[in-house]
Amino acid sequence: MTTSIVELETRDVRFPTSRFLDGSDAMNPFPDYSAAYVVLRTSDGAEGHSLVFTVGRGNDVQVAAIRALAPLVVGLPVDDVLGDLGAFSRRLAGDSQLRWLGPEKGVIAMATGAVVNAAWDLRARRENKPLWQLLAELSPEEIVGLVDFRYLRDALTPDEALDLLRKAEGGRAERAETLRAEGYPAYTTTPGWLGYDDEKLARLSKEAVADGFGMIKLKVGGDRDDDLRRLRIAREAVGPDLPIAVDANQVWGVDEAIEWMGVLAPYGPYWIEEPTSPDDVLGHARIREAVRPTRTATGEHGANPVLFKQLLQAGAIDVVQIDATRVGGVNDNIAILLLAAKFGVPVCPHAGGVGLCEMVQHLAMFDYVAVSGAQDGRMIEYVDHLHQHFVDPVEVRGGRYRAPTSPGIGARMHDASLTEFRYPDGPAWA
Amino acid sequence: MTTSIVELETRDVRFPTSRFLDGSDAMNPFPDYSAAYVVLRTSDGAEGHSLVFTVGRGNDVQVAAIRALAPLVVGLPVDDVLGDLGAFSRRLAGDSQLRWLGPEKGVIAMATGAVVNAAWDLRARRENKPLWQLLAELSPEEIVGLVDFRYLRDALTPDEALDLLRKAEGGRAERAETLRAEGYPAYTTTPGWLGYDDEKLARLSKEAVADGFGMIKLKVGGDRDDDLRRLRIAREAVGPDLPIAVDANQVWGVDEAIEWMGVLAPYGPYWIEEPTSPDDVLGHARIREAVRPTRTATGEHGANPVLFKQLLQAGAIDVVQIDATRVGGVNDNIAILLLAAKFGVPVCPHAGGVGLCEMVQHLAMFDYVAVSGAQDGRMIEYVDHLHQHFVDPVEVRGGRYRAPTSPGIGARMHDASLTEFRYPDGPAWA
Repeated sequence: MTTSIVELETRDVRFPTSRFLDGSDAMNPFPDYSAAYVVLRTSDGAEGHSLVFTVGRGNDVQVAAIRALAPLVVGLPVDDVLGDLGAFSRRLAGDSQLRWLGPEKGVIAMATGAVVNAAWDLRARRENKPLWQLLAELSPEEIVGLVDFRYLRDALTPDEALDLLRKAEGGRAERAETLRAEGYPAYTTTPGWLGYDDEKLARLSKEAVADGFGMIKLKVGGDRDDDLRRLRIAREAVGPDLPIAVDANQVWGVDEAIEWMGVLAPYGPYWIEEPTSPDDVLGHARIREAVRPTRTATGEHGANPVLFKQLLQAGAIDVVQIDATRVGGVNDNIAILLLAAKFGVPVCPHAGGVGLCEMVQHLAMFDYVAVSGAQDGRMIEYVDHLHQHFVDPVEVRGGRYRAPTSPGIGARMHDASLTEFRYPDGPAWA
Repeated sequence: MTTSIVELETRDVRFPTSRFLDGSDAMNPFPDYSAAYVVLRTSDGAEGHSLVFTVGRGNDVQVAAIRALAPLVVGLPVDDVLGDLGAFSRRLAGDSQLRWLGPEKGVIAMATGAVVNAAWDLRARRENKPLWQLLAELSPEEIVGLVDFRYLRDALTPDEALDLLRKAEGGRAERAETLRAEGYPAYTTTPGWLGYDDEKLARLSKEAVADGFGMIKLKVGGDRDDDLRRLRIAREAVGPDLPIAVDANQVWGVDEAIEWMGVLAPYGPYWIEEPTSPDDVLGHARIREAVRPTRTATGEHGANPVLFKQLLQAGAIDVVQIDATRVGGVNDNIAILLLAAKFGVPVCPHAGGVGLCEMVQHLAMFDYVAVSGAQDGRMIEYVDHLHQHFVDPVEVRGGRYRAPTSPGIGARMHDASLTEFRYPDGPAWA
């Protein structure tokens, strides 16, 4: 009898993080880190787990969008799905009625991503490999087959992608070895939330240095004097050499970003992240020209590969920030990694939230082993929140992510956490 | 006692249009035209009606997103809301948790638009004016106050917008008079659906000429030979002079669009609509250069004013196609009209679907009376479907939209239609 997908379950899970201002920034003063959680079940009892990260209200809308995909998924033979995850991804993203809700953006794109990622989790568990290793052991042809090139071909053809991947093929085994031995560089945003007082900022900045992180990041954009004071405190805490990045979380217009960054320039920020609307390709290009040598970074809210294509074509950014749950899943993120490699721009994933570190590390590590082949100028964001809820929490030691060894994509939460933080009727909320 | 908003009701309404292939195109072969319908109710018994247009599956997700906005709306004093619809719009679009679901795109942006538009309907009914007239009688300062300039200032400052509006102020009364007497030009897509056979295409094309429309539009992008044959049939039917536009509904990549339009060039299409991803600003700029003198048009899936700003900054399009229910409502569309006026690009609204003609005509007429002051090169799309479900259906005579005289924004449906087509339990679906 054919094994098939029998259920797409989704749950609304929320953590009351706003009570302590963890995650507070100029655009998101009171986030309640949340997950629209997904379990894909098969007729032989296997499960694939995944989630979409949101910041509270609206997590129910995300759950509804995931539920809307169930009729496209339930009943499919598992071998067909896992044997061609490119086709599966295109099937979900291309549904001619659901597509109208995006297209390829917002709630419906994230829902697609969640289901695609759950299928990847299923496959990785079946092959008993962590996602990064599963991806890094695919042939260049298989990897190219995962990507929808329809809107990307003018910047990257399938043949160019194949060339890139073949060039990186030789060193794969050696880099996988290095990765297992040394891990992957991390930076931390833990000290820099806008809602933390100066004492906490200084203390956590010092801890970040002691913990071996390669960079810290501060939230900015609320008040100029506060930003200057906080940059001074952080610089004193970390010493003269450690890079400090800043993150405005989209609060500025283009000219305002340029002006404000002029004020912060004496502190030499390593990058400015999300200076303006994530959709503004031309705006980022202008900002990048104006704020050099500070780098310009964006992408955590980049809706789809078409946006990243343009950011790269326009020379608008120095740092590509992928997110594990914003775009249409692993497949879209592979497209973005290939585009970034073609244009020679480093990828420094966005993480934090809930489960984002656990998931996105796999993509960065795959990039290192099989796509860009490099770690220089690359770091994964790290925030030390909410990892205890995960069955396979990230392990960060000496400022580096350890390569995961457990099978899967990393999103699986403990049953107890799913129950405790179920919204609105779990004990944490009741 | 203060009058306040007491309810935000939303309903899932779907029409089984796919049974007759009405609305069929290369990207949307089987649409079921649908509305996530909204009623805003006040404590003194007034109502504002609005809707989001979708094409079937997923209309329930849109309904869920509208419902998520209820806590931000219910309980507000009506005078506060209607007295500052700029602040109301920013309140909804700016909710720091819900914003994460976009930002400013997809399901959550359309939900915001639906609620903002329902508030405009409430106000227009209270003032006993059709929306176009209400807007066209606002002062330039009031109009500018409706727009969120945060991400637009680098292309259009509030002062520039004021200048534009003041320059158009003098001729308002005369143009309103002309509009009431002569209406506003329309073109029709009725003949051109991809699912219609050649005989129906020819017959409806001839009817379009007889009805006085200024242009017809054909869906293309399925098959080149079919496109060429259908263009030939349509040209023979309408005679040598009537413009024929074509619409690819996003099925092409950038180079494919250029190549395919090269094949269709002998038929001299008036414009190519949605040649590729609606997000691809740089792609449209390349296509526009390559397909001249055929014009390049897009916008019905343009997620927000930032996208339109860039299309205009990059000189990527010849025709701006606003949609009544895609962006964050009347306020976002005013922003887009102002941007288009600044860059001197004509606005030809997307319509059809269900209720889109009824709603978007108000924006085009406001543009004519108070913003661009012009009708040349401008037309509103018209499709003769589903108007019978509306309390104030559009009136198109001699190929021109008559200026609406009934108060409101035009979205109100008959109770009988709301009941008959309620999904999934209305009689039409049961």
